[in-house]
Amino acid sequence: MHSEPRRSANIPPVARLIEALQRLPGIGPKTAQRLTFYLVRAPVEEVSELAQAIAELRAQIRFCSVCHNITVADPCGICASEARDRDRICVVEEPLDVSALERTGEYHGLYHVLHGVISPVDGIGPDDLRIDALMARMRAGGIDEVILATNPNLEGEATAMYLARLLSPLGVRVTRLARGLPMGGDLEYADEVTLSRAITGRREV
Amino acid sequence: MHSEPRRSANIPPVARLIEALQRLPGIGPKTAQRLTFYLVRAPVEEVSELAQAIAELRAQIRFCSVCHNITVADPCGICASEARDRDRICVVEEPLDVSALERTGEYHGLYHVLHGVISPVDGIGPDDLRIDALMARMRAGGIDEVILATNPNLEGEATAMYLARLLSPLGVRVTRLARGLPMGGDLEYADEVTLSRAITGRREV
Repeated sequence: MHSEPRRSANIPPVARLIEALQRLPGIGPKTAQRLTFYLVRAPVEEVSELAQAIAELRAQIRFCSVCHNITVADPCGICASEARDRDRICVVEEPLDVSALERTGEYHGLYHVLHGVISPVDGIGPDDLRIDALMARMRAGGIDEVILATNPNLEGEATAMYLARLLSPLGVRVTRLARGLPMGGDLEYADEVTLSRAITGRREV
Repeated sequence: MHSEPRRSANIPPVARLIEALQRLPGIGPKTAQRLTFYLVRAPVEEVSELAQAIAELRAQIRFCSVCHNITVADPCGICASEARDRDRICVVEEPLDVSALERTGEYHGLYHVLHGVISPVDGIGPDDLRIDALMARMRAGGIDEVILATNPNLEGEATAMYLARLLSPLGVRVTRLARGLPMGGDLEYADEVTLSRAITGRREV
């Protein structure tokens, strides 16, 4: 006697939006249905603002050709800035992690976004990440320190170990965020104080 | 030292979408951020399909001038259909309730969507609902039964009572959806009110 909620909407534009929303992570059929019916009656400006914001996201967003963070201009504001410490690179998994670190105000160097972590279970190897691009930046010279800021979980640690092995022959200082971060946690959810402590307490690998 | 996650995205198109998503019911700042960063990297067809589905929802959807359900054509498919039992009207709170009842395949009559319930706490009175339109349909004649299918909670019951008082002088049959134990439910977990209703509403097998 179980029915699929998405079938409930036999009106094409409604069914279509429910279907599109369901593809988003963490949005199930019921939530998709509730959001759709909310949008049916929400102020029309709110709805068109949402549609435009989604449409223009991809039109305006690109990836920085240097650090691979998301950006509007290429290179991104951080890579282009002379005010940053250009002799250190902080390596993170995701663009969200750059946002989190910037919020602390503790770090003034450059970044490098891997866009993932090494995860054999998910079939993600080193070649699927922006590791080649990082090594190219290292070869270009001028970098004294690489801070490995991957998440403090299994995949993040493994990726950091992998990078440390690649980087140590280059004679640069390779550091890792201090264990102020709770194991098994997620960097993007860390509060600023914990994250600040983790930056100031970073250690040689 | 609590920071607002939305500040994290200092890239205008990202900040804009996070802000727009946050206005949706049940979507907090963290979820809005996660969805936005998902959309940054999702297949571009998926993202533009979502944007278009939202934009076209309001362009294509209107309310049926007869039953006030959402529809593409006016009158809606149900109101226009000669195959439906045109002598009965099922009164529901929301368009979603029509979908739920249609899915049962048990009801073949017409509908009337109130778009809410009487709720003095929220400042919603009878004039805020499509009750006048329902009474106009009644005056037009041909209706033998009105099924009050508002939700079995305080506001839904109050609204049903209010409608029953308005409708009974018209000499039509006024019914309410049966209350009792939900199918697949467990008697020991049923609340007292439901169980009381199930006892008083018991039927010959």
